[in-house]
Amino acid sequence: MEPLRLGIAGLGTVGAGLVSVVQNNAALLRSRCGRDVQIVAVNARDRARDRGVDLSDYRWVDDARDLIGADDIDVVVELIGGEDGIALELVEGALKAGQHVVTANKALLAVHGTRLAQAADTTGVHVGFEAAVAGGIPIIKGLREGLAGNRITRLYGILNGTSNYIMTAMRDDGSPFDEVLAEAQRLGYAEADPALDIGGGDAAHKLAILASLAFGRPVDFDNVHVEGIQAITPMDIEFAREFGFCVKLLGIAQVSEHGVEQRVHPCMIPQTGPIAPVDGVFNAVVVEGDAVDVATFIGRGAGAGPTASAVVADIVDIARGLRLPFYNVPVSDLVSTPHAPIERRHGAYYIRLMVIDRPGVIAEVSAILRDEDISVESLLQRGRDPEEVVPLVMTTHEADEDAMLRALERFGDLDAVSETPLTIRIEDL
Amino acid sequence: MEPLRLGIAGLGTVGAGLVSVVQNNAALLRSRCGRDVQIVAVNARDRARDRGVDLSDYRWVDDARDLIGADDIDVVVELIGGEDGIALELVEGALKAGQHVVTANKALLAVHGTRLAQAADTTGVHVGFEAAVAGGIPIIKGLREGLAGNRITRLYGILNGTSNYIMTAMRDDGSPFDEVLAEAQRLGYAEADPALDIGGGDAAHKLAILASLAFGRPVDFDNVHVEGIQAITPMDIEFAREFGFCVKLLGIAQVSEHGVEQRVHPCMIPQTGPIAPVDGVFNAVVVEGDAVDVATFIGRGAGAGPTASAVVADIVDIARGLRLPFYNVPVSDLVSTPHAPIERRHGAYYIRLMVIDRPGVIAEVSAILRDEDISVESLLQRGRDPEEVVPLVMTTHEADEDAMLRALERFGDLDAVSETPLTIRIEDL
Repeated sequence: MEPLRLGIAGLGTVGAGLVSVVQNNAALLRSRCGRDVQIVAVNARDRARDRGVDLSDYRWVDDARDLIGADDIDVVVELIGGEDGIALELVEGALKAGQHVVTANKALLAVHGTRLAQAADTTGVHVGFEAAVAGGIPIIKGLREGLAGNRITRLYGILNGTSNYIMTAMRDDGSPFDEVLAEAQRLGYAEADPALDIGGGDAAHKLAILASLAFGRPVDFDNVHVEGIQAITPMDIEFAREFGFCVKLLGIAQVSEHGVEQRVHPCMIPQTGPIAPVDGVFNAVVVEGDAVDVATFIGRGAGAGPTASAVVADIVDIARGLRLPFYNVPVSDLVSTPHAPIERRHGAYYIRLMVIDRPGVIAEVSAILRDEDISVESLLQRGRDPEEVVPLVMTTHEADEDAMLRALERFGDLDAVSETPLTIRIEDL
Repeated sequence: MEPLRLGIAGLGTVGAGLVSVVQNNAALLRSRCGRDVQIVAVNARDRARDRGVDLSDYRWVDDARDLIGADDIDVVVELIGGEDGIALELVEGALKAGQHVVTANKALLAVHGTRLAQAADTTGVHVGFEAAVAGGIPIIKGLREGLAGNRITRLYGILNGTSNYIMTAMRDDGSPFDEVLAEAQRLGYAEADPALDIGGGDAAHKLAILASLAFGRPVDFDNVHVEGIQAITPMDIEFAREFGFCVKLLGIAQVSEHGVEQRVHPCMIPQTGPIAPVDGVFNAVVVEGDAVDVATFIGRGAGAGPTASAVVADIVDIARGLRLPFYNVPVSDLVSTPHAPIERRHGAYYIRLMVIDRPGVIAEVSAILRDEDISVESLLQRGRDPEEVVPLVMTTHEADEDAMLRALERFGDLDAVSETPLTIRIEDL
């Protein structure tokens, strides 16, 4: 059988990792695919840079767009990144030219997924994007194929390794957020500009992709509710532990009576749940379906090897002749079911107020909660330090999000409250 | 596109679950497959039995073998079970007749896998066996496809839900083995004849299938070393907890300097490892590969829904046109790399002796360990009860299995030792 011929655009960590896996496991890939997997052309911004892999056998392409429609390239592998610009031009161009595409670009798919799926449907080519979500975890394959017999009711997970690393380190060392972030940057676990990771945007990209697959909806990134971990302190993590919880930045997508919920925010979850022990840079995804009940996937979310593993799996699929619709069903079968806004959430909450330690504060706070029909489950005021600022923490029974938002605003108006009140949603996951 | 037409042999829990999923999720399957999935014929021993699903639209077949070569059946689904007899005849006949096969039959594949793979290679049909290993966990797909870019170095897991349920209950309730087993049978978590589950044979079938896929070897069930959980007591589980371990029946397959190890036996593993929290009837599989590092899969190992989910996933694959070699590579590419016998294991051990509490016992035991060059890491003799039987437990540093076997035999010969000595291998997993 003819070899499968690749053009690779982008030679960063993942691109170099891909070249290395294709070279090192060439015989294995030949045996598993029934044909050779051949790199034909490569592209990056800087030709001179040493990437630790031998590129001398491959055609160097200065402009990634020259891969589009090249008659010696069956698969365009897009590892450039970014939701627009060259990456979009390259992927869309390749799909329209009838070339298969493998991409690790979550931002691109979260924003332009439906349009790209339409292009792929038209020419009948395969788009592999296992590497776009949770690197080494074969969750796209799990959803598109392994759980294809299920009506998915909920999925959730730890989708950003940087945030998980930071919160694990805050818990273990008790160091404040800024210090842990700087250390993560030094170790290469966080980018120089960490906004997408710690702000939740990266997890939101991934959640939007997973939710569209799971629920058969056009990708709906704009309706993902996103909060990051910047306001979490080691103190909150310690209080969580006392209450029997741990704190994770989760992406949650589920079908509720109000529509499809998509949200990324810090959560307190029971220490005994399936993903509570997933620490450090690891990712995890839990899928709930009507037949399978629950399936949990845990692995590395990033890094050269795990991400290259996912890219190669997609290439192997194409080499073996797998052709799936982008979103698991044709774009024409996607249904724009309504989305449920975050204000419709109904659940328990953790609230932390920094209050001036003086008589009457608890009475004021309690009155606000009573007015909003929010019932307190537990309340802790640690330390005694008259007229100084101390934390007042509470957990609530199930309450409505909009009532909680009103309560938070009123807390913020109290004279005795000295910082923006913090709340963390408690999820029984 | 033409519908995909199924003939289902065996209508037990899983068969009825399959019919129910195909009926309930028909529209979803049509959209995901691009064609209808149609049940054409069904077979079971007793036609009259009420299975809770409507079978009136399907042709009833009294002899499963009548499905072989039937020109209105594209896929034969074998849910009869058993390593020989009708199941073997049916599967082999269907493959030779050019029909695709989906089976949940781990015993059949562990014993006759290579022969069946050869038949499938010859006619070029697809064999799906996701349901044969760890029900709701898409681990066959994970190995054959999701991790296809990796050279797999090790895999291990909790492959038998019944054993895991029993040991979890022994830990939580402190009840002895026989009592917990009887309760598990009452709840339907254990078969009337539990030998395959608690003796490790069921896990060994699954491990043999996984190992052949992972390492590209002909299936090698005869060389799986198998021990069950019958000798484990709540006392051992409690001692394990004190040492920082939990006790799990694991299947482990790995490439070592001595060859390919395949073993199923109770293990003590650190409480902090990735599968230590997997309790009750849940299964888990951990795969280690050169690119992905480590990927963990957790889910239900049995039951109508999870197993049917796996069977349907295989059917969807076939409906979409996926055609993979049975063992991920053609049978002609399988390599019979040497296997490593259990005697070559090198690792730590837990030892529990029931000894008569009298002076000099520890000296005798210690002398034997010294003679065999086995170094003690910790030793506990609980309770003082002169001339009565008390447990003497030890953990060792890394030692050779053959030395440990000699030591155990000599322990058994000591006058002061009153029961067969128990050892549990400690694995750093």
